[in-house]
Amino acid sequence: QTCVVDNAIDQKISASVTRQVSTALAKAQLTCMNVKSRGRLATCPSGFKVTACSCGMACGSWDIRGEHVCHCQCAVMDWASARCCKMSI
Amino acid sequence: QTCVVDNAIDQKISASVTRQVSTALAKAQLTCMNVKSRGRLATCPSGFKVTACSCGMACGSWDIRGEHVCHCQCAVMDWASARCCKMSI
Amino acid sequence: QTCVVDNAIDQKISASVTRQVSTALAKAQLTCMNVKSRGRLATCPSGFKVTACSCGMACGSWDIRGEHVCHCQCAVMDWASARCCKMSI
Repeated sequence: QTCVVDNAIDQKISASVTRQVSTALAKAQLTCMNVKSRGRLATCPSGFKVTACSCGMACGSWDIRGEHVCHCQCAVMDWASARCCKMSI
Repeated sequence: QTCVVDNAIDQKISASVTRQVSTALAKAQLTCMNVKSRGRLATCPSGFKVTACSCGMACGSWDIRGEHVCHCQCAVMDWASARCCKMSI
Repeated sequence: QTCVVDNAIDQKISASVTRQVSTALAKAQLTCMNVKSRGRLATCPSGFKVTACSCGMACGSWDIRGEHVCHCQCAVMDWASARCCKMSI
């Protein structure tokens, strides 16, 4: 049994999926922003994730608390900045 | 010949694909984690990419080796931490 | 009227679309690269966003100008490096 109708439908589906997925994904991009705060903590808005932190006093030691908060570790600290990114479609 | 059946099926397919692509993409997000290690190297698990590195000793000089390894450059180093992200659908 | 043919076609479409959409989306991933320059600025190529910056002189204080430029802030600076990422299919 050669399922001619089935195969024809499958081919239609495959072409449509390929076209629509690539169109949709072509619009998808990484959206990023910076959030700078006084002190040693900086928090990304909801929906964004921290990708990196920058700190005052030339300090390169930081950690990320939860998914959204940059924490600058050096003893004396004047500002903290979070680089926040998300996928937007 | 007007391909009435073809057109009907095409419409069904297009509607289904549009619905499923947007549902799937709506769930797509940036997934991130931290990997901290003693010494000057920290490695992201496979599937993740390094987006940033943090280092002990307040050191802000680092580089990324391959796609997965943070390398803290300062002379004396106690720990290294990698921020690792990937797209998850 | 129970639209037996319609329902059969709908089921077929739905199953095939689900399979193909996840296959297509599974190929989408985060693509990253490093751009290192002398001085205090490093710039990501177009289409990429800065996720983090690394600086010479152990400097951990940096900021991101526009979406593409790392700026290392410490007084004396010999190199700057940008970690640049984008979504790719």
